[in-house]
Amino acid sequence: VQPPAQGGGSTLSSLLSSGRLSRYFILNFQSCSFSFEYICVFQDFDLAVIYVSDALYNRNIYFDTSPQAVRLYQLYNHWLPRVLVYFFILVDLSLALFEEPAVVPLPTWATMLVELLCLLVFTIRLGHYAKVIPRDKFWKDPKNICIILTLIDMIIYGALTATDCYGVRWSRVLRPLLLVNVTEGRQLRRAFRSIRNALPEIFYVFLLFMFSILTFSLMALKLLGKRGLKTIDGFPYFTNYLEIVFDLYVLVTTANSPDIMMPAYNSHVIFTVFFILYIFINTYIFMSAFLAVVFNNYKKYLKEEVRQLVKSKRHKMVRAFAILQERREEGGEPVVTQANWNQLVRLVQPGISNPHRELLWSVSDDKNQGFIGKLAFVQLADLLNIEVITLKSRPHPLQSLCPAFYLSAPSRLLCRLVEHRAFVIVYDLIILVNAVFIGLDEENPMISNSEWFFLALYLLEILLKLYVFEPRIFFSKHSFWNWFDTIIVISALIATIVNSALKSAGGYTSRQILDIVFILRVLRLIRVVDSIQRFRIIINTLIRIGPAILTFGQLILVVYYIFAMVGMELFKGKVRFYDENSSNPAKAYCGNSLLNESVFAKSNYCKNNFNDVVSSFILLVELTVVNQCSGFATVTHASARIFFVLFHIVVVIIILNIFVSFVLEAFYVEYSVDKGDLQTALEKKIEELELAVAQYVPVIMNTSCKDYARMFEADLDPEDFAENEDPEAQTNGNFSNPTFSSA
Amino acid sequence: VQPPAQGGGSTLSSLLSSGRLSRYFILNFQSCSFSFEYICVFQDFDLAVIYVSDALYNRNIYFDTSPQAVRLYQLYNHWLPRVLVYFFILVDLSLALFEEPAVVPLPTWATMLVELLCLLVFTIRLGHYAKVIPRDKFWKDPKNICIILTLIDMIIYGALTATDCYGVRWSRVLRPLLLVNVTEGRQLRRAFRSIRNALPEIFYVFLLFMFSILTFSLMALKLLGKRGLKTIDGFPYFTNYLEIVFDLYVLVTTANSPDIMMPAYNSHVIFTVFFILYIFINTYIFMSAFLAVVFNNYKKYLKEEVRQLVKSKRHKMVRAFAILQERREEGGEPVVTQANWNQLVRLVQPGISNPHRELLWSVSDDKNQGFIGKLAFVQLADLLNIEVITLKSRPHPLQSLCPAFYLSAPSRLLCRLVEHRAFVIVYDLIILVNAVFIGLDEENPMISNSEWFFLALYLLEILLKLYVFEPRIFFSKHSFWNWFDTIIVISALIATIVNSALKSAGGYTSRQILDIVFILRVLRLIRVVDSIQRFRIIINTLIRIGPAILTFGQLILVVYYIFAMVGMELFKGKVRFYDENSSNPAKAYCGNSLLNESVFAKSNYCKNNFNDVVSSFILLVELTVVNQCSGFATVTHASARIFFVLFHIVVVIIILNIFVSFVLEAFYVEYSVDKGDLQTALEKKIEELELAVAQYVPVIMNTSCKDYARMFEADLDPEDFAENEDPEAQTNGNFSNPTFSSA
Repeated sequence: VQPPAQGGGSTLSSLLSSGRLSRYFILNFQSCSFSFEYICVFQDFDLAVIYVSDALYNRNIYFDTSPQAVRLYQLYNHWLPRVLVYFFILVDLSLALFEEPAVVPLPTWATMLVELLCLLVFTIRLGHYAKVIPRDKFWKDPKNICIILTLIDMIIYGALTATDCYGVRWSRVLRPLLLVNVTEGRQLRRAFRSIRNALPEIFYVFLLFMFSILTFSLMALKLLGKRGLKTIDGFPYFTNYLEIVFDLYVLVTTANSPDIMMPAYNSHVIFTVFFILYIFINTYIFMSAFLAVVFNNYKKYLKEEVRQLVKSKRHKMVRAFAILQERREEGGEPVVTQANWNQLVRLVQPGISNPHRELLWSVSDDKNQGFIGKLAFVQLADLLNIEVITLKSRPHPLQSLCPAFYLSAPSRLLCRLVEHRAFVIVYDLIILVNAVFIGLDEENPMISNSEWFFLALYLLEILLKLYVFEPRIFFSKHSFWNWFDTIIVISALIATIVNSALKSAGGYTSRQILDIVFILRVLRLIRVVDSIQRFRIIINTLIRIGPAILTFGQLILVVYYIFAMVGMELFKGKVRFYDENSSNPAKAYCGNSLLNESVFAKSNYCKNNFNDVVSSFILLVELTVVNQCSGFATVTHASARIFFVLFHIVVVIIILNIFVSFVLEAFYVEYSVDKGDLQTALEKKIEELELAVAQYVPVIMNTSCKDYARMFEADLDPEDFAENEDPEAQTNGNFSNPTFSSA
Repeated sequence: VQPPAQGGGSTLSSLLSSGRLSRYFILNFQSCSFSFEYICVFQDFDLAVIYVSDALYNRNIYFDTSPQAVRLYQLYNHWLPRVLVYFFILVDLSLALFEEPAVVPLPTWATMLVELLCLLVFTIRLGHYAKVIPRDKFWKDPKNICIILTLIDMIIYGALTATDCYGVRWSRVLRPLLLVNVTEGRQLRRAFRSIRNALPEIFYVFLLFMFSILTFSLMALKLLGKRGLKTIDGFPYFTNYLEIVFDLYVLVTTANSPDIMMPAYNSHVIFTVFFILYIFINTYIFMSAFLAVVFNNYKKYLKEEVRQLVKSKRHKMVRAFAILQERREEGGEPVVTQANWNQLVRLVQPGISNPHRELLWSVSDDKNQGFIGKLAFVQLADLLNIEVITLKSRPHPLQSLCPAFYLSAPSRLLCRLVEHRAFVIVYDLIILVNAVFIGLDEENPMISNSEWFFLALYLLEILLKLYVFEPRIFFSKHSFWNWFDTIIVISALIATIVNSALKSAGGYTSRQILDIVFILRVLRLIRVVDSIQRFRIIINTLIRIGPAILTFGQLILVVYYIFAMVGMELFKGKVRFYDENSSNPAKAYCGNSLLNESVFAKSNYCKNNFNDVVSSFILLVELTVVNQCSGFATVTHASARIFFVLFHIVVVIIILNIFVSFVLEAFYVEYSVDKGDLQTALEKKIEELELAVAQYVPVIMNTSCKDYARMFEADLDPEDFAENEDPEAQTNGNFSNPTFSSA
């Protein structure tokens, strides 16, 4: 797999020669003027459009086919209500910032009013949804329960606070579930379903793992409990069974290594055998086994999901075909005419360019017959999913304005220089020198002035490139690094000027502006990575898993939110942070005398608390990295550790392993999978049509970043895609409807 | 894949009904009396035997085919010299215990004498090897250099110590390389080669990873260095670039999280964004990327190795065939007769039972012709690799001695009871109750006496089983759990009796014996795992990767040994451990005033030092788990950290990832790969031949535990095994000789 077109911003020839683009194809469109043909108007044309766009965007809602329901469904899929719902989910989730314990306290009535508004929006959206889908399917949806439960909780809480009783807003843990259950959160729901499916297997390994920990703990109790050893804090060492179980569980996370071993090791070297065996079995063998089980199951179920998805996509395309089909001759195969096809494509993707559409048609209608059969029609959804950028290849504006100058020998020499490989190398060297200058002390006036010099060099680079390359190509949508460069350099210029102006005006230097200047300077260095081919491949793999990382980001947000809500109820106010300048004696023990002289307070962990939602999230991130929670067990009760163990199981054992599995699979695909058949066909067609240099330049983007589930398609057996060709399936094929299975 | 026969120790019927064995096959051997047939005596019969056994044991040494060289080669492969070499390698490695800094100090002349003896043995072995293989191949072997370098070092060191100069025994790091380079360490060498092949890919990801760390460090320096923040120990925070780089590298290993973040977090919450981003990119993304790259490359190269191995195995079998072949008729296909085949198999595997051999023949000679062609002959090596246990199914000795009693109704009822599923469940419950009793305080006389009750119950179980099942089957080679039970229970009985005797004799309780009693008691609990089917599958997967874990054990031993040697040279005596009862004031700072008030000394880490080889190994294990090394940088120089970073890169980033890759692959194979074709053919044959119950019961063991490389065979393309049938390849096919490529 070649790297996708990210370099951009060069003329065609230089792009081709530099190898920055995977391929570049030039088309000649013989029929550039669009001829209005006869379009057979079907009653259900709208329905066909919906089927095709559902297939295109992998939507799986089973809707009524009455014209009214179809119109409602179209509205349901409109971007505006979808964005609105997301916005209100965001508002609903961010209420945690303003509710007790709050970052910015707001009165209870205000937050509850906002929450009511959010619930109203969700209810309207649900009502809309209920109108679209068949009635009986609607009542199985768990969203309804979430909303009703939230309402009940709000009423109870309102009544309790009104009567000055203590109430717990327990329904707050349900909020992130809305994010999972909203029909738009398909990827997230799929990830949740994969986790649920993998749970039984994980559970058995987990039981064995717990058995191993319990057995080792029993052995530790018997071997070490009676020896009268003391921990570093002077407490008895390994005398309480449950404490041992917990300590050894934490040892699996490596958080208390080697502290937990030291008293035994100091007593006799032979006890290290016990700990080394323990770490080997539980940290290495079992943790790898967890990863292996999660990896295998996740792969297996995701594959099954993708298979279902592909199947239902095909069914939908077959339905659309059934609507649009005509018979050219008596008893002949049903076909779809080019006119209808054009109309359909224009309605499904209004933004599609004419050359792009005609290219797709020529791929579908291989024999140039003017109509296509079912098989060719069905692949339309996949064809539309292949991203083709059409760039107008036009001459540089300077060439049109002042050709004599632009095409003169010195100007052409300059162009050749800028397009030369050495130009990139020189600028990479400049960046490296710049890195050294950034590292040096900026108090030195020579060094702080050098910043102007480097800024000038970077500006010159951008101007030179703009002189050589056509500006619209340089700033095309996919030229990531050009945009990156320009924005960073211009921002740095502005920030540096503002900073100097402030300084010379009153000798005053804003720390914030300086910070921005520094960040921008350092970010500039990242560009070095792009000019080395090997790095670009790795970076591209990492970028390609971006959408998946977003899904995992949502997944982890849901889990963090739930744990943050529960954690705040359990631990709020137990640990307090005092400002550095505070003279309060409670500062030494985080405002809780139970923490006096504890490791928690001595390590200055007071800010790691559950006192508001931001602190909670940061603490949960820390817990994901290292499960360090001794302090919270001290201030509440030993059983508080259950919360932290549970968090470790959910986040580290399950979710992080799924994340690692995903990265593994992404790299595997990157190393081994070739382009899809259809993509190859499209590229071949583009090559075939390459008759002369024309106005439009379509560029095929690697599509695998579009949908991470695609990655698994390559792994699927071809026979799984065998089409169900019998007529029953076409008319009333009730494809499975994964959307309705609860997450 | 069904679980292999591990339950064992039951009569046939109970085994079949309990599902403890994957399959059980009963054979009727019509020709049990062996008829001496005409054996055509070939001159090169020995050579054929060697080819077949080389193919069987995957040996890849290219040897001379003169009769003398063949005899030398046979001697070279004899178990005695091989065991001797391993023994002397062990002696050579364990010299580190006696050399300065020593656990048990011995005079220099003594250790050097032993080392000379070891070198002598290795040289003899090498001389032998040189006689076997062609002369020119010999001189490429890196072993020779190791021995010569060691000799040179010994002379220099001897001279230096004689003149009272300070000498470094630098050749000690070469010692573990002998383990890699000895011809027997094939698996280990293969692992090393896989690592070496994966290095370029890892290197590029590593460069990017380092670039990321350096960039983040620069940003940290600029953002946090000028704010005058202090660490918890009062040092300036993030002001030195190299310190920042190191601290952030350690943060990747999660060892100093969240301590490294706290000063910034306490200053302003916004800085956590920097750290969270850093941890996300470097700890999660890059560490997963390392695993992915290692996983993919390791798989790829190991597959290639296995392909080579299978190819050369086939070549060797073809050569053996060329020696033994006869022509039945003029112009017919060359064949091998049954008599020659029998002779060959008996010489290759002297321990093979007659029924087993005849079974293999009947699989090879499918049409019962009395001779086999080349294709059938070539698969002999694989057939021999399938482990078939032949058990004599004979009646219980009590039945022969006293049939009236043994076959009486109460006796048969007892047998049925013991064979019943409930018997297992009852004993599992007893074990669980026992676990609770172990956990309780054994000072209570009721509880300490209960031990006798439980021991009696376990003894009863074993006796009952021995009553029901034939003892030789119960204690057969593969009945792991029966052996385990019996040994544990008998040892516990003996230890408990000895303990009681000591106690009642003089009121004296030996701590050591009590420890043994406790360990045995807890180990007994493990048996519960075997009675749950789901657990057994997981355990079997883990057991199946046992041989691979041994290879990794050697790999890690090599790496640890080298790092221990270097570490001892660098850090010996820098940190001292004082006994708990010592009143030396130096105890508070580990005998090094530089450590005064340091975290290292305060955490009581003094025993984590490089003062002898045992301490070094334990410290290296700790460093593998958590890279905590601040103390050693304090006592020597900041650059000492390079040692620890290097250790982390080699052990955690490369070797542990290979280990995880291996577990991943093992679970994948366990979940997805079916039995090999040959194994299926063998099982089918056994079923076909099932005509009556006979004396011998062959049991097919799952063979995948035999050689971990086999796991990958399933993944290989079938066309890779396409045989090279041309006559040139048979006579002078020079198969690649991976043994000679240096590791």
